[in-house]
Amino acid sequence: MTRYQDIYPADRVILREVGLRDGLQLVKKFPSTAAKQQWIREEYAAGVRCFEVGSFLPAKTFPQFVDVREIVATIASLPGAHGIGLALNERGVNEALESGVGEIATVVSATEEHSQANANRSRESAIANVRRMVELRNASAHKPVVNAAISMALGCSIAGEVDPIEVIRIAEKLFEAGVDLVAVADTVGYAGPKQVGDLTAAVVKIAGGKPVCVHLHDTRGMGIANASAALDAGARVLDGSLGGLGGCPFAPGATGNVVFEDLVFLCESKGFPTGIDLEKLISVRKILRAEMPNEPLYGGLARAGLPCGTAAKAA
Amino acid sequence: MTRYQDIYPADRVILREVGLRDGLQLVKKFPSTAAKQQWIREEYAAGVRCFEVGSFLPAKTFPQFVDVREIVATIASLPGAHGIGLALNERGVNEALESGVGEIATVVSATEEHSQANANRSRESAIANVRRMVELRNASAHKPVVNAAISMALGCSIAGEVDPIEVIRIAEKLFEAGVDLVAVADTVGYAGPKQVGDLTAAVVKIAGGKPVCVHLHDTRGMGIANASAALDAGARVLDGSLGGLGGCPFAPGATGNVVFEDLVFLCESKGFPTGIDLEKLISVRKILRAEMPNEPLYGGLARAGLPCGTAAKAA
Repeated sequence: MTRYQDIYPADRVILREVGLRDGLQLVKKFPSTAAKQQWIREEYAAGVRCFEVGSFLPAKTFPQFVDVREIVATIASLPGAHGIGLALNERGVNEALESGVGEIATVVSATEEHSQANANRSRESAIANVRRMVELRNASAHKPVVNAAISMALGCSIAGEVDPIEVIRIAEKLFEAGVDLVAVADTVGYAGPKQVGDLTAAVVKIAGGKPVCVHLHDTRGMGIANASAALDAGARVLDGSLGGLGGCPFAPGATGNVVFEDLVFLCESKGFPTGIDLEKLISVRKILRAEMPNEPLYGGLARAGLPCGTAAKAA
Repeated sequence: MTRYQDIYPADRVILREVGLRDGLQLVKKFPSTAAKQQWIREEYAAGVRCFEVGSFLPAKTFPQFVDVREIVATIASLPGAHGIGLALNERGVNEALESGVGEIATVVSATEEHSQANANRSRESAIANVRRMVELRNASAHKPVVNAAISMALGCSIAGEVDPIEVIRIAEKLFEAGVDLVAVADTVGYAGPKQVGDLTAAVVKIAGGKPVCVHLHDTRGMGIANASAALDAGARVLDGSLGGLGGCPFAPGATGNVVFEDLVFLCESKGFPTGIDLEKLISVRKILRAEMPNEPLYGGLARAGLPCGTAAKAA
C-alpha cells in the first residue's frame, strides 16, 4: 500500500519528472527502454524521486509507452522512488494495478467543449470514471495513490477563458470521489501568475489537507513565474520535465512542460529544499540529446550554469 | 524640462525597451541607423513609449552607439516617446545634455569588487559621479530625468552573493544625490523571485514615492518570475528587450534581458495595462532578424502566439 502522505508530505515541496510520459507524448523518435532506465537512474542519483513513467493506453496508438511495465519495474528497484502511470479507462486502470505502479493518474477536462472533443465524453462521465477508478484501487492489493488532473484548468484551447468556479467545482467532486491528489493543469500555457495563484489558493482551500499539484506548461514563457505563484499559494507538488521536453499539441513549435532544472533552482531560491543536485540533473540531458537529437531542449540553468558560489548550496 | 512624474506616473506600470542599448552591447553585427529608427517607429506604433536609445561612450569602443544623437532625434519626433541614454562620466553627461535626450542613465556597482574591476573606481567615487551628474542636469536647460542603476544588486559575478543591506544603503545615497529613479539590476541573472521581491520592497520603502525600476536578465530562466515578484513588491518600471536581445558577458551563450513581449503578457495578465499591442510588437522582431541574423531571439509569446480569445484583450 502506498500512502500519499509518505510520497507527498505536507511540509515540503515535491517535484515530479513528467518527461518520460508527458514529455514523450508528442516526440517523433522514442528513447529506447534502456535509455529511459538510464534517464531514471541518473535522475534518481541526482535526487529525483517522483517520475511519471508512461501510460496504460493502447500501445498501437502510443508505442512510446509499450515498455511501461519495465519502467515501473525499474522504479520499483530504486529505494524510495515513486512511479506514476496514466490511465484513462477501466482497462487501463486494471493494467496499472497489475503493474504495481505506485500512483495512477487520470485526467478530467475543465470544459465541456474540451471533454467532448478530446475524450468524447462529458465531464460528468469523466468524473464517474474517476469514482470507479478509486473503487478499483480500494479493492486492489497494493492500493496505489490515485491522482486526477484537471486539464485546461487555466484556459482552454477550444473554449478560451475558463471560469475558476467550474474548476473548483470539479476539484470538489474529484476529492469527493476519493482521489488523493488533484492536479491543476495549465495544459496549453495560457495563464499568468495571478490567475495561477488565485486558482491554486482556492483548490488548496477545499483540498482538506490533501496535496494539490500544479502542472504547468511554459508555452508562453510564464512557466516559472506561474510555478512561483503556485508555491506562494500553497501548492507543494509541481510537475516539470527535463529540458522542458514535450511540445504543445495546440501550438506547433511551442515549448512544453516547465523546465525541471529551472524549477529546482526556483524552489531552492525560495527556500524550499528539493534534495536535487542541479549539476547532476543537468548532465542527464545528454541522454535526451542522444536519443532524441531533433527535440529542442530548453532551460536557463543548462545554458548559463549555476551562479558562482552557489553550486554547493543548490546541491 | 522632463518631469519624471510624467514619464513614470505612480499609478501605472511602464515597460522600457532597452534592446537598442543593453541589447546591442554584445552583438557582433550592428543594425543600421535606419533599421534602429524603424524598430523604434514600429514599437511606438505598437504602443511602446520608453526606449533606451544608446550610450554616450567613446564611439571607437562602442561603435554600435555612434548614431545615438540621430536616435535621440527620432524619439523626439514621436509625440510622447521618451529616450534614455547611458553616460558614465562628465564628458558623457555633457554630450547627453547637449543631445536633448529625455533621461540620462548611469550605473553604480553593488559590490566594491565589481566597481573596481569593471569601472576602475570605488563605489563612493561612482556615487560622487552621480552627484555631479545631478548638478550638471540641474544647471542644464532642458533638465532630463536622471536615473542610476545599481548593477549586480542581486548577485555579483565576482563577489557572488550580495548583501541587500549594502544595496539599500547605495540606493539611499543615490536618492540623496538627487536621482529621480533608481534601478535595481540583476545584471547576471542570479536571483530568484523571493530575493527580487524582498529587495524591491525594501528599495520602494526608502524611495519616498520616486519610481523604482527593476532591470532583470533571464540568464537562468527566472526573468519573468522575478518581474512578477518585482511588480508584487511595488516596482512600477521594468526593463526588457525585444526577443530578449543581448547576452551575458559573464555566461557565454546565455540569454540576455528579460523578453519584452513576455513582460507585456505578464503585466496584462496581472491586471496592469501596458497600452502595448502584442501582435504588433512581436512583428517588430523581423527587423532584428534581418539586421542581426546570428543573434538568437527568445520569447514564449512569439513562439506560441496569444491564447485564443485574448488577442483583443491584450491589445
